[in-house]
Amino acid sequence: MENLTLDKIYHAAYVLKSVARKTDLIKAVGLCPGSDIYLKTENLQVTGSFKVRGAYYKISQLTEEERERGVIASSAGNHAQGVALAAKQNGIPCVICMPDGAPISKVEATKSYGARVCLVKGAYDDSYDYACQLQEKEGYTFIHPFNDPEVIAGQGTIGLEILDQMPDVDVVLVPVGGGGLISGVAFAIKKLHPECKVYGVQAAGAPSMKESVEKKEAVTLDSVSTFADGIAVKHPGDLTFELVSRYVDGVVTVTDDETACAVLALMEKQKLVTEGAGAVAVAAAMFGKVDLKGKKVVCLLSGGNIDVNILSRVINRGLVMAGRNSTLTLQLEDKPGQLKDVSEIISRCGGNVVRVHHNQSDTNMAITSCYLTVSMETRDRAQVEQIKKELVEAGFQLISNT
Amino acid sequence: MENLTLDKIYHAAYVLKSVARKTDLIKAVGLCPGSDIYLKTENLQVTGSFKVRGAYYKISQLTEEERERGVIASSAGNHAQGVALAAKQNGIPCVICMPDGAPISKVEATKSYGARVCLVKGAYDDSYDYACQLQEKEGYTFIHPFNDPEVIAGQGTIGLEILDQMPDVDVVLVPVGGGGLISGVAFAIKKLHPECKVYGVQAAGAPSMKESVEKKEAVTLDSVSTFADGIAVKHPGDLTFELVSRYVDGVVTVTDDETACAVLALMEKQKLVTEGAGAVAVAAAMFGKVDLKGKKVVCLLSGGNIDVNILSRVINRGLVMAGRNSTLTLQLEDKPGQLKDVSEIISRCGGNVVRVHHNQSDTNMAITSCYLTVSMETRDRAQVEQIKKELVEAGFQLISNT
Repeated sequence: MENLTLDKIYHAAYVLKSVARKTDLIKAVGLCPGSDIYLKTENLQVTGSFKVRGAYYKISQLTEEERERGVIASSAGNHAQGVALAAKQNGIPCVICMPDGAPISKVEATKSYGARVCLVKGAYDDSYDYACQLQEKEGYTFIHPFNDPEVIAGQGTIGLEILDQMPDVDVVLVPVGGGGLISGVAFAIKKLHPECKVYGVQAAGAPSMKESVEKKEAVTLDSVSTFADGIAVKHPGDLTFELVSRYVDGVVTVTDDETACAVLALMEKQKLVTEGAGAVAVAAAMFGKVDLKGKKVVCLLSGGNIDVNILSRVINRGLVMAGRNSTLTLQLEDKPGQLKDVSEIISRCGGNVVRVHHNQSDTNMAITSCYLTVSMETRDRAQVEQIKKELVEAGFQLISNT
Repeated sequence: MENLTLDKIYHAAYVLKSVARKTDLIKAVGLCPGSDIYLKTENLQVTGSFKVRGAYYKISQLTEEERERGVIASSAGNHAQGVALAAKQNGIPCVICMPDGAPISKVEATKSYGARVCLVKGAYDDSYDYACQLQEKEGYTFIHPFNDPEVIAGQGTIGLEILDQMPDVDVVLVPVGGGGLISGVAFAIKKLHPECKVYGVQAAGAPSMKESVEKKEAVTLDSVSTFADGIAVKHPGDLTFELVSRYVDGVVTVTDDETACAVLALMEKQKLVTEGAGAVAVAAAMFGKVDLKGKKVVCLLSGGNIDVNILSRVINRGLVMAGRNSTLTLQLEDKPGQLKDVSEIISRCGGNVVRVHHNQSDTNMAITSCYLTVSMETRDRAQVEQIKKELVEAGFQLISNT
């Protein structure tokens, strides 16, 4: 805290001019009726997340001696890429310790910025421990992902940009993991425009900052569980805890299902790809976690580095929830023409069959019958209900529907 | 042609200030090594595509009498939303004729801008015919999607913005369907910065403009086939054909597979959602359709309105192509422990099994054996090969691999 000042954030903004993009503030449509929602698109930032701001500013402020020793960081994701790019642009050697299970896309991206990547067996904590060992042995400078005044000042430049792009903003919603991002943003905004409310958003499965603020002391969670891996943090920093306690108006949580809906809505309506952590602020707005009625609101999209396998699952889940993919299981008499009759009904209702599976050997059914599982692309829930109704009317027995 | 002037495009830019976003020009990374690629992000435009520019400018220039009669358009997609929003903001009644098979998301989006939507049985041509009938009967003003000087002037404002955002651009790649977008963009750029090359990109399954330019007359294709529905046009306009012939340096084509790769790359690397038509310029750059070595290149992302079901398929196809989803079919002896052995090998190699299917009744195999089909999430092709190798070494017979 001692070291965080508005001056430092302005200085960071100056230093970052040649590196970080001043990301666009884009009006959102239909995400939260009754309020004006704008998206600060840090998912479109260089390296795909805001992390490059703090990492670059921190590294630019190292002493000549620290620079010569090189930098080290541990991260499975966005911090890795931010530090790697910042080190490269400052001409400094860089080692990143990553868990060996990290998605290959993130490992490759980190390498592409010229960093030496150490894949460490185990989880994030093991990478962290190994990075600390390496630091002691080799003398590298450790770049902390959030609990550092220069890193926080770098992230705070987003607060300056938001006020520049929308001086009369009423509410800013910010994703919270370790708290570095919201510490910088809230500090900048409260110093310049104290009437603006700043709320943090955490995953319900990793509410470390929320619990810390409520208990008025930094707590450590036993475990965290969320697909928003970018904010799955067990313990806030002492510095970020202090800043959040002082400058943030509240911390709310969203479930993974709510976050998945937000990721899908941002893709469909705004054409923006966000990772889970990047979409929690929008999830909070969509699901009414903060009263935004009649307000001008900025949701900070913190990053877009989502593994495509996960993204594909999020889409598929969203499609099922919206009735646009549907799987029905029917019990049929095992005789010719049944599949024809079923497919005719589905086709007449406008459903598009994409997968069919016959099962003759389930022990729960009569020996003369079989199960037919049909997966379809459908238009909406009403169409699925229509298909079900017509199948039942034609004498088919519906066993399940997912 | 008679009516298109630089003055008109400047006027359109002035009129559009309050409606259209000046979309960001974003540097792309790793899409096309050896050249500097920038993306003009019209997928982030209001309504999700550039179409609102031309539609709005056209409608703003109608006479009082034409305004009173209201406007009509036929479209399954982006033009519908552009016209609907433009009419709403000009306070003009609006009817849009859409094919009844149009995705419900596009129908809903068009309605949400206040248009009356007529769902017309059949394909696009039927909607067009019906719109012409309605126009005659009711006296509406017809808004053509591309073959109109005001519409073209509206799209041309993108050319002005590109030159403002990057005055020294060497090459601009533009998607081409009916040719309205490239006509306006090429006209503006060639008038102001004639050294800049402008190329059109069409889908290989709908090369109407390419063939027209080559034959020096506007041709009509018998049929078109591409998932890039936004540029699946059988016949260019006479006006757009003339402008393209005069101002465009060449038209190239890309396959649907190349476009799918571009859509996936834009999502993964740039965090941007594009529809098929919106990604063809990037596909052309990625797959070397134009020599871009050492050049500063702008790829125009024309739109992002892709149906999520299609997007999900594009992702899945891309994942298979990259070795990140893989499905193996093995022939097993039908005895206990086989599945355990297979899953142990896959697990040891780091594959994540997501679906398993047993088949005992294929007539091609011995009565004591069965087929096992295993779908997995994998890291890359090398990992898939490793899994296959270890399975074969363990005595399993590999039947197929997709």
